[in-house]
Amino acid sequence: MRYSVLFPKTRKEAPKDEISVNAKLLIRAGFIEKLSAGVYNFLPLGWKVHEKIGQIIREEMDLIGGQELNLAALHPKSIWEKSGRWDKFGALYKLKSQSGDDLALGATHEEVLTPIISHYISSYKDLPLYLYQIQVKFRDEPRAKSGILRCREFVMKDLYSFHATEEDRASYYERVRKAYEKIFKRFGLKAIYTKASGGSFSEFSHEFQVITDAGEDEIIYCPEGDFSENVDITKVKEGKECDMGHGPLKRAKVIEVGNIFPLGTRFSEAFGAYFTDEKGTKKPIVMGSYGIGLGRNMGTIVEVHHDERGIIWPWSVSPYDAHLVGLSEEAEKVYKQLKDAGIDVLYDDRDVSAGEKFATADLIGIPYRLVVSQKTGDKIEVKRRDGEKTENLEFDSLLKLLKEERED
Amino acid sequence: MRYSVLFPKTRKEAPKDEISVNAKLLIRAGFIEKLSAGVYNFLPLGWKVHEKIGQIIREEMDLIGGQELNLAALHPKSIWEKSGRWDKFGALYKLKSQSGDDLALGATHEEVLTPIISHYISSYKDLPLYLYQIQVKFRDEPRAKSGILRCREFVMKDLYSFHATEEDRASYYERVRKAYEKIFKRFGLKAIYTKASGGSFSEFSHEFQVITDAGEDEIIYCPEGDFSENVDITKVKEGKECDMGHGPLKRAKVIEVGNIFPLGTRFSEAFGAYFTDEKGTKKPIVMGSYGIGLGRNMGTIVEVHHDERGIIWPWSVSPYDAHLVGLSEEAEKVYKQLKDAGIDVLYDDRDVSAGEKFATADLIGIPYRLVVSQKTGDKIEVKRRDGEKTENLEFDSLLKLLKEERED
Repeated sequence: MRYSVLFPKTRKEAPKDEISVNAKLLIRAGFIEKLSAGVYNFLPLGWKVHEKIGQIIREEMDLIGGQELNLAALHPKSIWEKSGRWDKFGALYKLKSQSGDDLALGATHEEVLTPIISHYISSYKDLPLYLYQIQVKFRDEPRAKSGILRCREFVMKDLYSFHATEEDRASYYERVRKAYEKIFKRFGLKAIYTKASGGSFSEFSHEFQVITDAGEDEIIYCPEGDFSENVDITKVKEGKECDMGHGPLKRAKVIEVGNIFPLGTRFSEAFGAYFTDEKGTKKPIVMGSYGIGLGRNMGTIVEVHHDERGIIWPWSVSPYDAHLVGLSEEAEKVYKQLKDAGIDVLYDDRDVSAGEKFATADLIGIPYRLVVSQKTGDKIEVKRRDGEKTENLEFDSLLKLLKEERED
Repeated sequence: MRYSVLFPKTRKEAPKDEISVNAKLLIRAGFIEKLSAGVYNFLPLGWKVHEKIGQIIREEMDLIGGQELNLAALHPKSIWEKSGRWDKFGALYKLKSQSGDDLALGATHEEVLTPIISHYISSYKDLPLYLYQIQVKFRDEPRAKSGILRCREFVMKDLYSFHATEEDRASYYERVRKAYEKIFKRFGLKAIYTKASGGSFSEFSHEFQVITDAGEDEIIYCPEGDFSENVDITKVKEGKECDMGHGPLKRAKVIEVGNIFPLGTRFSEAFGAYFTDEKGTKKPIVMGSYGIGLGRNMGTIVEVHHDERGIIWPWSVSPYDAHLVGLSEEAEKVYKQLKDAGIDVLYDDRDVSAGEKFATADLIGIPYRLVVSQKTGDKIEVKRRDGEKTENLEFDSLLKLLKEERED
């Protein structure tokens, strides 16, 4: 893609009302634009990152047997009354249709999916079953000032699992935990598995928490990884010796990048989702639900991976593989060669100064910056966004380097 | 995918309140499920078709320079007031947040995108520009009884174009028209380019109309393709001689599968989206908008391509490449071979009768049915869903046949 054509270009300043690092950088670099507090538009660069995040999640959900579907966002009041959450789910947006029907905007989808399950599942032979979607959610958040970390409208991956027994649910819960650990690792995030409250979903839950000063949650945790609880529920104090002898527990600000809930049978009982077991006994289906917010992860990646010059995308979610800075006519040829070799490259072909092009590349944060100029001759100057060293490579060596990165 | 694992299985009967062919077949075959009138959930088979439809549109939009983004669905009242459509856009869902803000659910996105354009575009050098999204829309439709042809919540591809001159807008309009013709052809639909009213968008518009008895619109048209107008605006009567001498004009029921609007400068003036031309004169940006409803196209494909036994998907949007009916143990081996060869195959591995498996395959409507049984020996019986003839092929010949279909 030619940067001269890409919409929009970078901005000098972020809007004054943005206080979070993720929103400031993402807006300045042209990834997102705020429509109102907690509601953001994703512009072409931002949507590309968002889609890559979605694709990584999709791959890992498919590997643990997930089947993708897409549930509606416009919910009749009746299903939220049936689960007892019409009044209890605080952040529910409510509205009336012109014909007078009471509706809610989907904040989560247990209320939609469990009735569908009740229509189709009748025997233990139909279980277990794992269904997920990557779909928009609406939550009327009272505080929405952390950029895309806490939005009123956001895309979430929500997986729901259905089991004959609590043991089977618990064993799948561990599979999802491992899949989540892979996902966050692929995002370049170090997520800490943390026990937490279950809110309106369940007695307790587990959260995946990433340490950063931008976090709105706090945890007490062992730095060696064998203990972590959300301060909202923990009875343990900072400084206490860890049970495994790893020294004193720490306290840290964190962002919740994923969560998993053991739902038990509360939704299946409310919606009549029963099955018949091997002995012919009718029982409620045991459920779990598992969420990852895509935009929140994108924002967390920016909070964790940036410097004073801009964003530093991990390769896996970078909008482009490489950022080609053209300072001589030769750049056109290299751009074409890279495209032909299947490299997704952003090519700054504008008639502006080298300094402006370098600043643009640093702000956008694609992991490899390539420079073609009079000075580089037949070679291409390569610099990693997270390093300082430059190196002049032949085209074939450059291609090898970029392809190796892809295979990692 | 093993059919024994796929959620859900086919149903004997569609719900009694469904009157449209598309909803009846799609529900019976397990593609969709109704949540309320005009609001449908897409189950795994249905979501796969929906995603294929989206990918075809995406490819064609990218070929005409479209840049994909994603705009929010939760709109502040202020932007709809600014365009003068808060009271005028009849199907707008309106709601209040808990903190008292008036909101609308996005029914279209001129009101969101034009202000963004006004922030970034200032010179004729930044034009033209083509931006699109594949994103959910909400419309409070008074009549919603045609299955997924007219929904209250649906995913739409909406493209917006921005130009310095009306001439440039008109020339891009023709490029979009050609891209749309390719898209509908790839869907297996014959769409008639039709002049129509512009509603709250513009003085007039053009619709792409597909003839079927399930249609809610009507057109007067020349069967040779040189004239078509929506009956809502036409002054021409059925039976009149066509100007090109092709005989009498006909009248037909049609479904609108796409539309294009010449918006002029009404939104750019409302939102202050101006540019400076080569002579330094400030002018409002000239706009066009171009929509395709994904679910509506999926429903139209079913209305046009089905028989008394079920759906007949065109290859391009079929949920799977082939439907393997296993009647002997050999089928397991063929399933594995097909998967290894990159064929996306739905394999009916259930312990039910051959008759039930054939009925399931006919209802779901994947274009190739493959049978492996005692009778077929080393070969595989192949039957096209839209034909009656069966043929026994070696594995390699089958693979060649399926791969050729893909390249078409």
